[in-house]
Amino acid sequence: MNKHYENLLPHMERLNAYSIALTMLSWDSETQSPENSNQNTSKAIGTLAAEQYQILINDEMKDLLSKLNTKEEMETLSLDQAAIVKKLMKSIEQTEAIPADEFREFKELIANSSRIWAKAKQNNNFDEFAPTLTKVLETTKKFTSYRAKENQDLYDLLLDDNEEGFTSEYLTAFFTKIKEHIVPLLKKIIPKNDLIDKSFNTLKFPVDKQKEFNHFIAEYVGFNFSCGVIAESEHPFTTHFHNHDVRFTTHYYEDNLESAIFSTIHESGHGIYEQNISDQLTMTPVGCGASMGAHESQSRFFENIIGRSEAFWTPIWDRLRGTFSEQLSSISLSQFIRAINKAEPSLIRTEADELTYTLHIIIRYELERAYFHNEITVEELPEQWNKKYKEYLNITPPDMKQGILQDTHWSSGLLGYFPSYALGSAIAAQIYYHLLDIMPFEQYLLEGNLTPIRTYLKEHFHRYGATKTTNEILKEMMGEPLNVDYYLRYLEEKYTKLYCL
Amino acid sequence: MNKHYENLLPHMERLNAYSIALTMLSWDSETQSPENSNQNTSKAIGTLAAEQYQILINDEMKDLLSKLNTKEEMETLSLDQAAIVKKLMKSIEQTEAIPADEFREFKELIANSSRIWAKAKQNNNFDEFAPTLTKVLETTKKFTSYRAKENQDLYDLLLDDNEEGFTSEYLTAFFTKIKEHIVPLLKKIIPKNDLIDKSFNTLKFPVDKQKEFNHFIAEYVGFNFSCGVIAESEHPFTTHFHNHDVRFTTHYYEDNLESAIFSTIHESGHGIYEQNISDQLTMTPVGCGASMGAHESQSRFFENIIGRSEAFWTPIWDRLRGTFSEQLSSISLSQFIRAINKAEPSLIRTEADELTYTLHIIIRYELERAYFHNEITVEELPEQWNKKYKEYLNITPPDMKQGILQDTHWSSGLLGYFPSYALGSAIAAQIYYHLLDIMPFEQYLLEGNLTPIRTYLKEHFHRYGATKTTNEILKEMMGEPLNVDYYLRYLEEKYTKLYCL
Repeated sequence: MNKHYENLLPHMERLNAYSIALTMLSWDSETQSPENSNQNTSKAIGTLAAEQYQILINDEMKDLLSKLNTKEEMETLSLDQAAIVKKLMKSIEQTEAIPADEFREFKELIANSSRIWAKAKQNNNFDEFAPTLTKVLETTKKFTSYRAKENQDLYDLLLDDNEEGFTSEYLTAFFTKIKEHIVPLLKKIIPKNDLIDKSFNTLKFPVDKQKEFNHFIAEYVGFNFSCGVIAESEHPFTTHFHNHDVRFTTHYYEDNLESAIFSTIHESGHGIYEQNISDQLTMTPVGCGASMGAHESQSRFFENIIGRSEAFWTPIWDRLRGTFSEQLSSISLSQFIRAINKAEPSLIRTEADELTYTLHIIIRYELERAYFHNEITVEELPEQWNKKYKEYLNITPPDMKQGILQDTHWSSGLLGYFPSYALGSAIAAQIYYHLLDIMPFEQYLLEGNLTPIRTYLKEHFHRYGATKTTNEILKEMMGEPLNVDYYLRYLEEKYTKLYCL
Repeated sequence: MNKHYENLLPHMERLNAYSIALTMLSWDSETQSPENSNQNTSKAIGTLAAEQYQILINDEMKDLLSKLNTKEEMETLSLDQAAIVKKLMKSIEQTEAIPADEFREFKELIANSSRIWAKAKQNNNFDEFAPTLTKVLETTKKFTSYRAKENQDLYDLLLDDNEEGFTSEYLTAFFTKIKEHIVPLLKKIIPKNDLIDKSFNTLKFPVDKQKEFNHFIAEYVGFNFSCGVIAESEHPFTTHFHNHDVRFTTHYYEDNLESAIFSTIHESGHGIYEQNISDQLTMTPVGCGASMGAHESQSRFFENIIGRSEAFWTPIWDRLRGTFSEQLSSISLSQFIRAINKAEPSLIRTEADELTYTLHIIIRYELERAYFHNEITVEELPEQWNKKYKEYLNITPPDMKQGILQDTHWSSGLLGYFPSYALGSAIAAQIYYHLLDIMPFEQYLLEGNLTPIRTYLKEHFHRYGATKTTNEILKEMMGEPLNVDYYLRYLEEKYTKLYCL
């Protein structure tokens, strides 16, 4: 083994241990910790984050990496090792411009802010969250400004953190193309929506039965419970410690059957990705998804391409009906499929259909961008949010909960993240057409046999972790990088068929 | 503030952050983590423990402490600060003789061993646990031998870690006195046991209803859920991160009503103690109980002195009967009280009555001592365990689960701990007579008003954390240190009345 690389190993081991500890404290805070714990615990989180910072940002580490960063040395490394070195250099680039005490303070802030957001959401009161949100946004802006090269767009820098190589120029074009496609399609569909009755979805579905079914369906799509956990939180999310311990949350609503089911399938997609990362990479800096878009491609693939198809539900329809026999007694499988795919403007992103989903993303993208371009303030966000919902979806949130306070992302400091959902949806569609070409995809779903699909994804996508970029993975797997046309074709075909357009 | 002390603060802050992280990983492992997570996660635990070791054991820390450890300097410190300095010196004394790599390896071992024990217990197979237990015991023995002064008894060193100043000479005398008292009392009681029917306790009690009642009773005795959590684990235990986040577990058995209730009240006692430690001390090295015996005195006080009294149950009897109306329909409050206090030899320590409880402790004490004196091997433990149960309690465990594998302590490296339960029981009785003297104790229980009792304990016991020794606290509160006679009097009076002897 390269001697400099060998000298890196104990540093990586320490970074990983801190990452596991901090992830655990964050998981606990979202899922279990008591109401009053945060103030003390977040101090400890700040201290640990400061330790982690010191391990990443120090002369020995930089020296080792700069010794490794020559053509000659890099050629002595395996591909995985080289990817790890690159990832560490990127992490340093993202972090070193931030002074240690400001880094620590921000981690303490983030450790508290989810809780403040969740409470503000419960109380339907944006003012409770606004001061914290301002701090998060301002600090993020300040941190990107520390790193930015002259004239570099700050929001582009954030986009690049989430999705290497993607700029707002690319994304604006990407969104415009999708919008031009969705809006006319939606116009054709809306008048036909009276024919799809999904009122059954808001009957009463006891939470314990929902839990039982959601556990079943997570396992059915392939989430491995001997290496994973489901819990509950205000906003569903997935996290991982390593490939043998991947966890996600869901949120049960007694008066909404769909909500938990599709968020469970979505998060299971994230979870399966993490569980399939190879043993050689887990517990290293590249033991995670290739990018946020790569991650969302897997979750959206499981949620939508698989989870909203008739073939998927055919073998398990009786199980769902058996679990909720009273509520679903008069519903047929094909009615259910139409209902779970009904496209109509709605308020909540996570529950939006595939057609309107991207409009929710565009709204967030435009607001974030405007904020980073100093065009709007935090105080103006609720009004701007509502204005854009009126403009793009022709609806107005009746309250903050269903408007500006619905998503957890900003409270966790996830800025520039939302576009990844749209990129992920597009990648998912591209993978779908690829799988249709190379395997009896629908047949597998009809047989309730998802193993060949997962095996293929593991082999060609998941196992690589972050050793390749998303586009590298896509190119090797399918011969071309991300191409939005598949997504447009998918939406066109799907909704034409569903609505007999 | 003393300058050297001020220089200690960042070190203490870091020690505390690691302690919170490691406690969280351990809590998670006991309550939630998936089956296969341990191997990877325990590596991270080892790494973090090694970091914590380095923060405690280093020249700067030792230098600061030795500068502080003069009469002159110590006089400039507040009592709390002086206690913190002493505690840190003790921690260093306990740790520095252990080489860093061995320390780390042991922490990794302990991170895995609870899981191995729990599985062996489930499978009722001691052989599955024996190799791990051997490693834990041998390493503990080795570590104490590193620290021991010439001719110092290794087991005495462990006892002192749990209970400063208590030796096996003291404990052997203490146990002998109790045994001489219990055995004849038990002989008088056993023939009368046919009159107490507690068969209702093993009817079917749905777990969800038990959970609801246990949550109620934890809150009723004073556990504060805005600063605490209840979860489930194989073996009930309490842990804390700071006074605003204290957690305990319980274990529900559908066919045993008593089991969860009294373990919940017991752990609530631990929890209340931790929640009442003052804000100035929490997050410092003395932000914990004064000793294990001090801790067990509070848990045993709540469990037995309060929790098994008729006055306590009087105001909440209807609530229990309402929750389990079918199962308890023919049971009266006085029958219930006799049942939960019935004294008879039994297999499981945590479910033993107050009279036979100490015999369970003596068995563990004698086995541990024999092991540390090289008189028995791990392989001989099950046989010796059963032999002692036959000798002291005249019963033989039918299997490993109800015998040698019942307790989690050894798997967690808790050696020399068990005697603290007995010391705790004795202290609890002493506190009881003190409270009878100074307040209308029984009247408060009858009124369902535990606040004055908790307030007194907080003021005179809990808030001090580990700034005083257990005997110092007892002396200041009651005028004398631990005196076993109160315990003997308590048992005598209680069982004479209960059995009309």
